[in-house]
Amino acid sequence: MEDRIRLADKLALLDEPYKPGIVGYLNDYKLVAVKVKGEFVWHTHEDTDDFFLVLKGRMTIQLRDRDVELNAGELFVVPRGVEHCPKADEEAHVLLIEPRGTVNTGDAGGDLTAEEREI
Amino acid sequence: MEDRIRLADKLALLDEPYKPGIVGYLNDYKLVAVKVKGEFVWHTHEDTDDFFLVLKGRMTIQLRDRDVELNAGELFVVPRGVEHCPKADEEAHVLLIEPRGTVNTGDAGGDLTAEEREI
Repeated sequence: MEDRIRLADKLALLDEPYKPGIVGYLNDYKLVAVKVKGEFVWHTHEDTDDFFLVLKGRMTIQLRDRDVELNAGELFVVPRGVEHCPKADEEAHVLLIEPRGTVNTGDAGGDLTAEEREI
Repeated sequence: MEDRIRLADKLALLDEPYKPGIVGYLNDYKLVAVKVKGEFVWHTHEDTDDFFLVLKGRMTIQLRDRDVELNAGELFVVPRGVEHCPKADEEAHVLLIEPRGTVNTGDAGGDLTAEEREI
């Protein structure tokens, strides 16, 4: 894993939405690049907050009581225990930060569950 | 502290280089906006890695054995225990992530040591 991380180069390695790649680590947290397009799955992380920073494009983090709209340069931290569902009409590029071992689909599981992998 | 965090708006609230402002939290980590201009101070964080993401402009993280040059969209994690000194010729806008309570000047102290404050 390289030293300086150029996020655009990492995103270019991802060929499908919602197939995240780990680009680095911060202590016991993973730094994850992901493309968002379409709707993900409603899920909850009971044990951790969940950091989203939009790098390119725009996305929506749906919560049960409202939608959080994020453009490039905007971030949102989903509090632990809060059910959420990301979506985007057009492809968005996103940096996620969460503890190592956090499953992308949280408590929901299903086909979109991704193995941890470094890119 | 608001919900969605627009980093450019937060940076606009900072009037001096190296006077960081906390814009949010991720579990026990603080999300910190800071303007970088000129040279900071050589210091080490013995207990934590240190996350730098350049949002605008460019900066250098000087290490004792090399310089890490970062442009907008590039990040670098200084490993714990590694002495470093940020600098920038022109003002750069940076997102830092580190555990709450981390002192900006690490083991060095001095005039550039900043209190934690939310913006």
